[in-house]
Amino acid sequence: MGSSFGTLFRITTWGESHGPGLGVVVEGCPPRLPLAASDVQTELDRRRPGQSRITTQRREEDRVEILSGVYDGLTLGTPIAMAVANSDARGSDYAEVKRAYRPSHADYTYQAKYGIRAVEGGGRASARETVGRVAAGAVARRVLMGAGVEVVAWVEQVHGLSAGAIDPDSVTRDAVDQNIVRCPDPAAAARMIDAIDAARKAGDSLGGVVAAVARGVPVGLGDPVFDKLEADLGKAMMSIPAAKGFESGSGFAGALGHTGSSHNDLFYADERGRIRTRTNRSGGIQGGISNGEPITLRVAFKPTATILREQPTVTEEGEETVLKPKGRHDPCVLPRAVPIVEAMMCLVLCDHLLRQRAQCGL
Amino acid sequence: MGSSFGTLFRITTWGESHGPGLGVVVEGCPPRLPLAASDVQTELDRRRPGQSRITTQRREEDRVEILSGVYDGLTLGTPIAMAVANSDARGSDYAEVKRAYRPSHADYTYQAKYGIRAVEGGGRASARETVGRVAAGAVARRVLMGAGVEVVAWVEQVHGLSAGAIDPDSVTRDAVDQNIVRCPDPAAAARMIDAIDAARKAGDSLGGVVAAVARGVPVGLGDPVFDKLEADLGKAMMSIPAAKGFESGSGFAGALGHTGSSHNDLFYADERGRIRTRTNRSGGIQGGISNGEPITLRVAFKPTATILREQPTVTEEGEETVLKPKGRHDPCVLPRAVPIVEAMMCLVLCDHLLRQRAQCGL
Amino acid sequence: MGSSFGTLFRITTWGESHGPGLGVVVEGCPPRLPLAASDVQTELDRRRPGQSRITTQRREEDRVEILSGVYDGLTLGTPIAMAVANSDARGSDYAEVKRAYRPSHADYTYQAKYGIRAVEGGGRASARETVGRVAAGAVARRVLMGAGVEVVAWVEQVHGLSAGAIDPDSVTRDAVDQNIVRCPDPAAAARMIDAIDAARKAGDSLGGVVAAVARGVPVGLGDPVFDKLEADLGKAMMSIPAAKGFESGSGFAGALGHTGSSHNDLFYADERGRIRTRTNRSGGIQGGISNGEPITLRVAFKPTATILREQPTVTEEGEETVLKPKGRHDPCVLPRAVPIVEAMMCLVLCDHLLRQRAQCGL
Amino acid sequence: MGSSFGTLFRITTWGESHGPGLGVVVEGCPPRLPLAASDVQTELDRRRPGQSRITTQRREEDRVEILSGVYDGLTLGTPIAMAVANSDARGSDYAEVKRAYRPSHADYTYQAKYGIRAVEGGGRASARETVGRVAAGAVARRVLMGAGVEVVAWVEQVHGLSAGAIDPDSVTRDAVDQNIVRCPDPAAAARMIDAIDAARKAGDSLGGVVAAVARGVPVGLGDPVFDKLEADLGKAMMSIPAAKGFESGSGFAGALGHTGSSHNDLFYADERGRIRTRTNRSGGIQGGISNGEPITLRVAFKPTATILREQPTVTEEGEETVLKPKGRHDPCVLPRAVPIVEAMMCLVLCDHLLRQRAQCGL
Repeated sequence: MGSSFGTLFRITTWGESHGPGLGVVVEGCPPRLPLAASDVQTELDRRRPGQSRITTQRREEDRVEILSGVYDGLTLGTPIAMAVANSDARGSDYAEVKRAYRPSHADYTYQAKYGIRAVEGGGRASARETVGRVAAGAVARRVLMGAGVEVVAWVEQVHGLSAGAIDPDSVTRDAVDQNIVRCPDPAAAARMIDAIDAARKAGDSLGGVVAAVARGVPVGLGDPVFDKLEADLGKAMMSIPAAKGFESGSGFAGALGHTGSSHNDLFYADERGRIRTRTNRSGGIQGGISNGEPITLRVAFKPTATILREQPTVTEEGEETVLKPKGRHDPCVLPRAVPIVEAMMCLVLCDHLLRQRAQCGL
Repeated sequence: MGSSFGTLFRITTWGESHGPGLGVVVEGCPPRLPLAASDVQTELDRRRPGQSRITTQRREEDRVEILSGVYDGLTLGTPIAMAVANSDARGSDYAEVKRAYRPSHADYTYQAKYGIRAVEGGGRASARETVGRVAAGAVARRVLMGAGVEVVAWVEQVHGLSAGAIDPDSVTRDAVDQNIVRCPDPAAAARMIDAIDAARKAGDSLGGVVAAVARGVPVGLGDPVFDKLEADLGKAMMSIPAAKGFESGSGFAGALGHTGSSHNDLFYADERGRIRTRTNRSGGIQGGISNGEPITLRVAFKPTATILREQPTVTEEGEETVLKPKGRHDPCVLPRAVPIVEAMMCLVLCDHLLRQRAQCGL
Repeated sequence: MGSSFGTLFRITTWGESHGPGLGVVVEGCPPRLPLAASDVQTELDRRRPGQSRITTQRREEDRVEILSGVYDGLTLGTPIAMAVANSDARGSDYAEVKRAYRPSHADYTYQAKYGIRAVEGGGRASARETVGRVAAGAVARRVLMGAGVEVVAWVEQVHGLSAGAIDPDSVTRDAVDQNIVRCPDPAAAARMIDAIDAARKAGDSLGGVVAAVARGVPVGLGDPVFDKLEADLGKAMMSIPAAKGFESGSGFAGALGHTGSSHNDLFYADERGRIRTRTNRSGGIQGGISNGEPITLRVAFKPTATILREQPTVTEEGEETVLKPKGRHDPCVLPRAVPIVEAMMCLVLCDHLLRQRAQCGL
Repeated sequence: MGSSFGTLFRITTWGESHGPGLGVVVEGCPPRLPLAASDVQTELDRRRPGQSRITTQRREEDRVEILSGVYDGLTLGTPIAMAVANSDARGSDYAEVKRAYRPSHADYTYQAKYGIRAVEGGGRASARETVGRVAAGAVARRVLMGAGVEVVAWVEQVHGLSAGAIDPDSVTRDAVDQNIVRCPDPAAAARMIDAIDAARKAGDSLGGVVAAVARGVPVGLGDPVFDKLEADLGKAMMSIPAAKGFESGSGFAGALGHTGSSHNDLFYADERGRIRTRTNRSGGIQGGISNGEPITLRVAFKPTATILREQPTVTEEGEETVLKPKGRHDPCVLPRAVPIVEAMMCLVLCDHLLRQRAQCGL
């Protein structure tokens, strides 16, 4: 339990950071969907370590292999297994870690929970486990494409630096990918990159916020009262390593800066008779169900716990020690979090698309 | 699907706002636990409408009946069914609503999703459905009490007004319940009550933030990589009506106001040799697993969508109209959200307690 | 866990034999389906105790109340809660049972598992819990009717007495209900009734076999490799109290009395071009998926454990004693098992109908 | 959906007969359990094709690789991924099958359900998918060993030939594996082998019955009312390719050949004060819960659908044709079904062991 996500479009991921490899099994994918390894590879390449100077320098090709569920380029409706091999696994970097718990990492809690852990690279707690999520997200994205749904995420804030206003109705993946920090505001992006560079040189790390939008989502997705769309999106996002906060639509600012009369989204009928809202503080979701407006959300990621500075800590035996990690690290996870946020958003929407089809037709 | 929550301690809620009643079935409760209707009633009374001048004036006794699963005051290990009857259901208040979609309510999305809706009171979309959650939460709380876990929530912010620093290590339910807004800072509480009163008189509404803490949580709860403790808590909270945002530990502020070196929680061994952290920006969860520190979270609630002001909207047929609700409403949901947040937190922790017992022993 | 069944059309039952009542919550029912309490009552009346001289004489009206999920006679798509009150609960009959474990009942295993049990009437282990199943099955039957699916069960064998050949393509509920033992072969029925009467008078009990067919099932239902249609039907049937065996299609006789060349169902195209099989040893299921032929199954029920004879047994404390039950009992569960088998078959088919709709369209 | 089994000890299998390979992910395995690839290989070798002259001559080494979840020979508590590569995949044997539906195979239903199928070897419908089940079953067996539970299955009947009385209290795997048909009665085994040989030479096939026992099962496993132990075992067995029937304890014979007074298992307290039953017609399960007696079951397998004889059938286009398979086949699946039955029994018991631990302690 715990390594599966979704109900009808259900994924199960596996793999440790320094084991033989990582992968995922996707269940419930509709049959006869075109799917090539290259579709998946495109997404994995955006998540890959070593893709720029502001990400970890671990070199992994992350070449995906589709092991089942696809026949002559089409999905079979049977489980789709995908795997990626680990190659650049420098176990020796972790000799010291074997003894000492890294602050704000999962070393201590995994040891306490399971009584054992794969020490190197954090084992299962490594963000490397998101390989499986991103691969599965690529399949979900293919399903959503067929339904006219488009998902785009971007870096909105890094530490104190914010992008200018990004229009969720029009922002594109091309605009996002035009720089290595994945912020579609080029001026802000340049400042963010400088800040991350500076943090890296200082052996420190930065956090920030990723925003995302889904456009073209059919009205009716989401299953109240517990599996509301924002609830499942919230779980999806909060399950990403380093996530500390989640907002749907107007979020905390809407709760604190508005009254009901200024917050409510007023309905109107557009020229085609379609019911729309004049504002979108609801973030495309009302009563837990999509209303046809763009679905918007924001996710806060803490500064990476791995820093290249001495930190006091304790050993497994509870003795005081000082830890100075020698490993590679991401000075800021935000650029690589973008494809992960997109993947999780695709997984949630795809699952609810199938759920809606089952109960209400679509 | 959608009305069940949890895996091992699993609840299923049912009921519409103006139907015969509402209720819940609790599956997986351990046997031989003392449970009386009064244990449940205590929690329901905190959620009950009409409990003060700043809540809706709908009068409901919300008297719970335990229909199964308890024998001679002890749980049987079989499903515990509980029900509450609806009484003060003024259907006539909703005559106008039958035709027009209330802004930022679920009228439109329910109609679009299901092609039908129980019009009066919002039907299933009413916050009245949380009766079942709170009743089930009372059972979960009994399980947690046996494990030494204590859960307390309180109102931290209403609109622009914040409580002073509340210490999550020591705040008590008594302090929370000493005023009708459920803010343990009496001075801030007085200002909040005034603000809510003013909003009520103006026919408007206010939002805010509820904070919560769980103390005494054993190390090891949470199932990475998807069912991390903060992910399940995030889903639980985002499923509450009107929730717009969720934070675990340091939340958005931690992501934006810290660097890794200032954010990391340093480990030490306390006098009893127990491994602790000197700060708790992790909010009691690391790598998705509880680390023994207090679990802290915050939930943002939007200003109530029901306001007693004229608002333009459209009818089911897409024609423009103006709506002026005559019903009763909560000018601010925060005071009544406190027991709901507690209930959902209890449900998540209880479920993970059983899960940990199953896989790892406890 | 354990009191829920199904994935998309999911039911959760609750209630003890002598508690306040019993009921069920049905999740996932499609919206806008006509549903009246009388639809449910019709099925409950076939399951009701005291319906004839060969069933238990406990008098229960089993009057169902629909508590949620239906509005103006149509389903809402929200959970449908239904309840039945217990009335004729003679607790005093069970004074002796409090001390002694009834042979081949669940008294001992419930006590051992949970450390507690509702003594009267077997509590949750009573076949009375099937009230919720039959009520939910009535809802599933409404869904199936819309898809052109018809389900009929009947008594095929009682002890050594077999019905003559019953044609699964044409047997009707009317034919089944024409006698109190629910065997559509009147001559065999008369002999079965005599045998049951004799057993009743002797304070003994008889077992037998219920057969069932589903006609009009669309091709494509069933989810290999674990949720094959016959696997889910097998689980459904084996979960009925007193069930000891299950057969799909040709069953044990097919396994032992045929070779591959005599057992295979040969394909042909009928006059409308539809692919059919000339025989139906597969019982309408191939590779775990419905093939459009009638789905056939058989379920063996043991002789009722409750007999009105002295039997040696042990007390909770492990002391030897002799038990002579004074309660009422069914000398043969078969007639009342017929609507339960139908209900479970409807539940499985309805669930798979929705599943097929979700993944493959329908 | 459909390729996962279990709730707490949950497996997900993947793979097609002639794709790159097959495998399984096991979730929920307790940590710190010794597990080596050789433990799994031992079980796979019993399932392997080509192991004797009475099994298919397809040559597959079925060499398992453990890809995650194990560290220094101990389980981590994280998902255990295992894979086996396909090697001897003679696709050319299936040229004819591409056009014509093989009788009593899943060719037609897969095509009808999914609109596509992996033609060679039956794709996902091949019994080759049980590789993943057997690998996962080996892990479950390790968990059960720690709880003192032992599972043994054997061939009891082949066509008309029955083994003499096998004592479920004492039959051993060694006795089962002493001959290639896996029947612990050597004289019957010899006759069975001759019959299978004769069928093979005649291009025909035979069915039969596998029996199984679990000894040392703790009292209390099984979750009424739906997840009764015999219900989950029934589903598990009926999901095995070619299974047509299932019996728990006395099965059909108990239903038809006994009265209540002769069928009931009388309780007594043994010399150690443990409550036992004098007979075991209940098959170790009462009220859906294990009672500490050996759990006994029987599974009927139809004669293999693949026969080397001409059979009339239809093409995908519905045209009449005659099919004469040239592939390899098992003239009788029974010997290879033995490890599969054991694996499924281990999976069910292991899952319920964890479930019992969660709800009731153990």
